[in-house]
This record gives sequence, C-alpha cells and structure tokens, in this order.
Amino acid sequence: MINKLIDKIQKTGAPIVVGLDPMMKFVPDHIKKIAFEEKGETLEGAAEAIWLYNKEIIDKVYDLIPAVKPQIAMYEQFGIPGLIAFKKTVDYCKQKDLVVIGDIKRGDIGSTSAAYATAHVGKVQVGNNLCAGFDEDFVTVNPYLGSDGVQPFIDVCKEENKGIFVLVKTSNPSSGEFQDRLVDGRPLYELVGEKVAEWGSQHMGSKGYSYVGAVVGATYPEQGKILRKIMPNSFILVPGYGAQGGQGKDLVHFFNEDGLGAIVNSSRGIIAAYQNEKYAKFGSVNFADASRQAVIDMITDIDQALKNK
Amino acid sequence: MINKLIDKIQKTGAPIVVGLDPMMKFVPDHIKKIAFEEKGETLEGAAEAIWLYNKEIIDKVYDLIPAVKPQIAMYEQFGIPGLIAFKKTVDYCKQKDLVVIGDIKRGDIGSTSAAYATAHVGKVQVGNNLCAGFDEDFVTVNPYLGSDGVQPFIDVCKEENKGIFVLVKTSNPSSGEFQDRLVDGRPLYELVGEKVAEWGSQHMGSKGYSYVGAVVGATYPEQGKILRKIMPNSFILVPGYGAQGGQGKDLVHFFNEDGLGAIVNSSRGIIAAYQNEKYAKFGSVNFADASRQAVIDMITDIDQALKNK
Repeated sequence: MINKLIDKIQKTGAPIVVGLDPMMKFVPDHIKKIAFEEKGETLEGAAEAIWLYNKEIIDKVYDLIPAVKPQIAMYEQFGIPGLIAFKKTVDYCKQKDLVVIGDIKRGDIGSTSAAYATAHVGKVQVGNNLCAGFDEDFVTVNPYLGSDGVQPFIDVCKEENKGIFVLVKTSNPSSGEFQDRLVDGRPLYELVGEKVAEWGSQHMGSKGYSYVGAVVGATYPEQGKILRKIMPNSFILVPGYGAQGGQGKDLVHFFNEDGLGAIVNSSRGIIAAYQNEKYAKFGSVNFADASRQAVIDMITDIDQALKNK
Repeated sequence: MINKLIDKIQKTGAPIVVGLDPMMKFVPDHIKKIAFEEKGETLEGAAEAIWLYNKEIIDKVYDLIPAVKPQIAMYEQFGIPGLIAFKKTVDYCKQKDLVVIGDIKRGDIGSTSAAYATAHVGKVQVGNNLCAGFDEDFVTVNPYLGSDGVQPFIDVCKEENKGIFVLVKTSNPSSGEFQDRLVDGRPLYELVGEKVAEWGSQHMGSKGYSYVGAVVGATYPEQGKILRKIMPNSFILVPGYGAQGGQGKDLVHFFNEDGLGAIVNSSRGIIAAYQNEKYAKFGSVNFADASRQAVIDMITDIDQALKNK
C-alpha cells in the first residue's frame, strides 16, 4: 500500500492528502436541509448530511489527489449513524481508487491494540468466516504505550499489505508539553522517531519506503528537518498545513532529496474552502468547486516550495 | 459522577470494576450457536454473541459492583454491528445503575478531542436538537498530545458532570519504553501525574476527589505508590489485576488512607472465569455464575490486602 501511495503521488504530482473531517458548521445549508428533511434533526440526519457533503467533495477532487484522511472523531460524535457514514466514506473513496488513511490515533496494550488493528486494517474471525469491520489502507497510531502497543498493528499490516503512521511530533500548540521533554539531552519525539525507523525496518515496501510512517506537524518545520534524517525510509504524514498555520515553505524539509517521503494534509482548508474569503465567489451551493480550486492551489503552493528548495 | 462512583464503592464495599472486554474465544459455544443461527457467521452474528454474553454476566454481577469498563476495541473489531453492541452494553449497564467507564483511550488535537468528548461523554448539536452519540460516565484519555488534547474532555465533563481517567503508567510490559524515560531525573509518567493533579483541580467533586483520574497499572506497584502521592485527589483506575499478573497485595499503595482513591479492574479474570481451572466446576453453560464467584473472590482478596496494609 505504501507502493501504491507512492505511485499515486507520482502520477498526480500531488504529495497531498485531503482530510475529510466534516463538522456540521462546514456543511452548507442546502445539504443540511435535504438531510434533515429526510432523516430529521437527529444523529441519522447529521450523518446523512456529512455523507452527502463528503460525497460531493470526493467526486470533485478524487482525480487530483492520491489519498484522503477521514478523521474518525468527526463521525464518532454522531454515534452509530456517524460511524456508518465513516464506513460509507471509506468504502466510497476506495471505489474511487484513493488511498484511505484512517485518522484514528488508536493505541493500547497488546491484545487491545490487536483488536483495533483487526477493526481498521485487518479481518476478524467469526465462526468459519473472515470479516472486515472497517477497511482503511493506513491508520494513525499513538505510541505512548510503547512497542507492544504498536507491534500488533505492524503484524496485521504485514498480513494485509497495509501501513501505519505513528504520532511523533503533533501539530497542536501544546504538543511539546510531553513530546519535547528532554531525555538524555534529546527531545522525546526524537526517541519516538528512532523507534519508528526501527519498526519500519520490519516492513519495507519495494520503493525504498517502509509501511511504518510518522505524523509530524507542519507547524514544527525545524523538528521536521531533524526527524526527516532520523527516519530516512519513513513517509511523514504532515498535518497542520493551511488552517493550522503551516505554509508551503515550511514543508520542504519534510521531503527527501528524491522529492518523496512526505504527504501533506489539509482538512478544513479544502473541505470548507467556500467559507474562506479567497473562494467565496463559488458560493455555498458550489462548495465542492471551491474545494477543487483549493486543492489545485495547494498543489501549486507545495510544488513551488519544492522547486525553490 | 465521581461522587456517585464513591457512593457505590462504599455501598458495595467493592473498589472494583469489571472489564467487559468480550473476545470471541471467551464466548461459550452455546451462546455462539444461538447468535450464529439467528444472524449467521457474520459481524452481526458476532455482535449478537458478545451482547448475549455480556448481558448474562451483567445480570449476574451488577449488584456486587459499582462500575464496569467496556473496552471499545473489542467491539470496534466487529465493525458497526460491534459498536451497536457496545452502545447496547453501555445503555444496559446504566439501566442497572452501574457507573460506566468507556475504555476508549482517545486523544487528539483540540478540535478533534472535542469531537471525541462530545461522542462519548457529551451531546452534539444537530439543528435544534442536542443528541448523545454514546453516553458513558467516564472515559479514558491518552495524554501524548498534551493539555490542549485533554482540556476539551474536561470542558465537556464539567458541563455533563462526568469524568476522565488519563493514561499515566500503563500496565503493559513495554509501557516503560517512553513513559519511564527520565526528564530532569524523573520519569515521564511522574510529569504526566503532576498534570493530572493540575487538571483535576479544575473539576473537583464534593467528596475530596476530582473528576480527573489516572490509569496506573497494577503491574507497577512501586510506581503506583509514588503516583498516589503526586495525585492525592485523583482516583486511580488500576488495570492489570489477575490475568496480567497483579495481585491484591500489589494494590494497597494505590489507595489513600481513607480506603478510597483506587478502583481495580479485572477483565478476563472475571468474564472468562469459567475457562480458569479454579472455576471450571461451573461449566460453560453457567459461565456467568463463575463470573459472579470470581467477583466475590476478587472483592475478598482486595479487602484482605487492604486490612493487612
């Protein structure tokens, strides 16, 4: 799957991923009206609204991009109906041949991590059948519990030819509270980065990159530069571009000399582009056209930044 | 809700929580047969099997205990049907007046943590309605992203009179890989413990304990002793008793002098007791009676240990 991700990045010329993180305040009124009329102002109505919203965006951008990253929390907040919309979104993106990164940030003790891995990138035995609960291509994993919380994900990914991105240095303002604390003179995130490199050596793809990537926020470019060197064979999933403050020029150090090694996420900057003054001319009815333009602009921004490296 | 937890611990004399972590290998054959005949060897069949299994255990033990802790991963592995069984289990336990600790170990950047908090301990706005997705009383939270990943949970809990348990020192063998690393000469988990105490001061109950507790594994009693002092007003949720190796005598230092301050979890030691030689005489058909006896024995073990403190 890391090979497929690389192929698709090269084909599209777009090392980007669109974060499908639908919040109700992003969904245009005309979509909410349709959904609420059909299913009421209920969890089912909300789930229908975010599904209709997602589908229109996916239809308008899928040919430009290699991958999407649905954030499961934004679906989970709508309970079971929300999670049904998550699954529909994952399945629909896979039909469109997009690589799907489930942003689930799970992580637990061994047997429990194994259940999460089964849930999202594996198959569970039921009687004589193997069944897939959810079916993403990659998932994000929290490393706080150490190797035995991460290993079950790697084991399942090896079987299924799938991958993970481990949280190393997150994009949020207080990420340094624990992640930056110095251990033997070095920040904790560097030690986590070293582990990512070690875990990745167990599960290498054929194009020089492992199936074990890392999450490093665009908001911390200097740290990204160091982590790039610590994990030379790991893809870095870079959140924080756009709405969180990261810019194209901040991103260059996340890439390797081969122009690969990073994939940059933008969520609300793309999916809620129509609410941004820059794209307001599209209007809320044409929200997905605004998203398409925002994707094109993002590709150009990153391309320029990489050319000026 | 922390007040209710304390009341119930005092009424039952049982500072314990039963982990409802159903794995298919724990479910007796006669239950699987019923479920699979009705729903097939499918995710729906598996979900029905774990629901029937849970319900019988809950019916047999609810009067003895203050709380349950369903581990969501064990349900999530069965996809949407599994999560429906999770919700049914949560709702049924609340009907039985049990305190429900959702073991979800979520944690993300601020806006995403807010969505998880909404999902599990809050309510989401849909049009003019407020809807609850899931509806646990407490949830477990991963601190790796720092304060802005934890604060949204506290904010929602203040509104809803609910609480959280933050992972501090987990019970698994490799928990030390990052959690024990020395920062200024002190292990990281101590710094996380200090933050738990600080977060808790924002949201105190009326009985001397805060709504922000900590998870500290029974398998690390020495660390528990230190953390008990660092977080005097926080309840400690203690996993790792029984199957993971923790014993009654290991637990005494997790409690305060008032005999409160800790709640000890056992999962497979209770729910799969009938598979343990000690309770084999019950037979698989009477699996829930074996669970009841295992609960009684666990209460006695901890009671003895506290008396011999």
